[in-house]
Amino acid sequence: MSEWYLHGARVDSVPVDDRSVQYGDGLFETVAIRDAQPRFWDLHLERLTTGCDRLGICAPKQRALRADLAAGLAATAIDTEWATAKIVVSSGTGPRGYKRPDNASPTVRIGLFGGLRLTPETYRDGARALVCQTRLAQQPLLAGIKSLNRLEQVLARAEWDDAQILEGLMLDTGDRLICGTMSNVFIVRNNVIATPAITRCGVAGVMRRHVLAQLAREGVACDVRDIHVDELDDSDEIFLTNSQFGVLPVRQLAARQLAVRSISRRVMNLVAASGVPECAT
Amino acid sequence: MSEWYLHGARVDSVPVDDRSVQYGDGLFETVAIRDAQPRFWDLHLERLTTGCDRLGICAPKQRALRADLAAGLAATAIDTEWATAKIVVSSGTGPRGYKRPDNASPTVRIGLFGGLRLTPETYRDGARALVCQTRLAQQPLLAGIKSLNRLEQVLARAEWDDAQILEGLMLDTGDRLICGTMSNVFIVRNNVIATPAITRCGVAGVMRRHVLAQLAREGVACDVRDIHVDELDDSDEIFLTNSQFGVLPVRQLAARQLAVRSISRRVMNLVAASGVPECAT
Repeated sequence: MSEWYLHGARVDSVPVDDRSVQYGDGLFETVAIRDAQPRFWDLHLERLTTGCDRLGICAPKQRALRADLAAGLAATAIDTEWATAKIVVSSGTGPRGYKRPDNASPTVRIGLFGGLRLTPETYRDGARALVCQTRLAQQPLLAGIKSLNRLEQVLARAEWDDAQILEGLMLDTGDRLICGTMSNVFIVRNNVIATPAITRCGVAGVMRRHVLAQLAREGVACDVRDIHVDELDDSDEIFLTNSQFGVLPVRQLAARQLAVRSISRRVMNLVAASGVPECAT
Repeated sequence: MSEWYLHGARVDSVPVDDRSVQYGDGLFETVAIRDAQPRFWDLHLERLTTGCDRLGICAPKQRALRADLAAGLAATAIDTEWATAKIVVSSGTGPRGYKRPDNASPTVRIGLFGGLRLTPETYRDGARALVCQTRLAQQPLLAGIKSLNRLEQVLARAEWDDAQILEGLMLDTGDRLICGTMSNVFIVRNNVIATPAITRCGVAGVMRRHVLAQLAREGVACDVRDIHVDELDDSDEIFLTNSQFGVLPVRQLAARQLAVRSISRRVMNLVAASGVPECAT
């Protein structure tokens, strides 16, 4: 079930000449709604604004955006105690051609969905993942932001059909581990945590940023750096982050079993205590 | 002015949960319509089918597609003697998430627009172009096809606002010349023609393919190979190809003046004679 809103009014469609349809000319955020409130709103807003700046789209005013979201949450039949809001910013409608019209007027559509709920066992025992064949192209202009050009993720996600596999990890064309199709990834070796730098490709997730902030606050070191795919084999632990599920350990990567050990648990507990209770185990 | 059709019926919008809106999950073709008929239909159809195969989208049946186009052309108020048809294939609607639903049903929307008309002087004297700062990422999975993920072209096209500049040439992240934002490019040096290989990125244009076929038919050699950006400086002639305008010489690239010389004229005349009369000079 889903509902979409434009300035608080239900919408079912997008103009066919909208540049999101024609070129993927826009951005989105996927925000966890808990108790009718957006979680980590400031972080989502900051990434969205950064993305708009990078793409040259006039960013939505934050008060108007917050009001639009509140209007949708007030109007919806979806249970907002535990929901997901997808905020889609398009550069607007326009004539044929890549050139944005001078009078371009960006639009914000907000989709509301039932929230993702993973079982306590998934958090406790960990999820299954694989490494995708589909590589991420290196495009620094789009790295970090969450644009509507997501064919690489679509192709990667099409690589498996087994509902037991939650995520696919993606490498760039230079054999570096970057992120999952819908999550960020952290590896642990000899008690040292590392996560890929998101400078050439990949999305810099809000939950990744929150985890990094929590680790910094606790004085726990985490290297943000290039990670070669081979380091996956040497990892003692792997965990994923995503704004909807929080922190989730990986118990199996392709054929390899991984124990869910102390560091992943510690990070999960830290993040749970900071406002993401679902990942408490 | 534009009109959009779905199976011959006018449409103004796309479902908000269409995957073209959400992820750019689809492809398009821009077909020149001349005397109410699509030009180079077989070539467009072949690229569209190849693109669908590459993306794992069930390609539209060619008879149904041709019938849809004919229905739109019969219904439209746009002058079909000289028009442009934009065929947009989406993987269909679906729930939130990169995974395509098992029951995905691709849709084909056809936009009709007034045709592009360049002046005889532009064909005779050549167009102005520049080299864009925006680089194309190297993604062989998407190279050649015309997907709906076009943010790189949008960013490149936003680099200039001077209406006298028709096109921006794009390099990949490895300093290779690839194509224009909306055209392919050929260079001539010492009477030898070359055009970039479209293996890592870029769109393999229908007019490019037609030009290559015409040259082969005439026994004129054309190297399809990697071209370093520095070769632009050494070129005697540069010309562009595009399904709407045919073949067009470049008379000025950034500050550099280029003469429109014999090879470009010869190619233009060859292509004009083969069914693209607008590029006869």
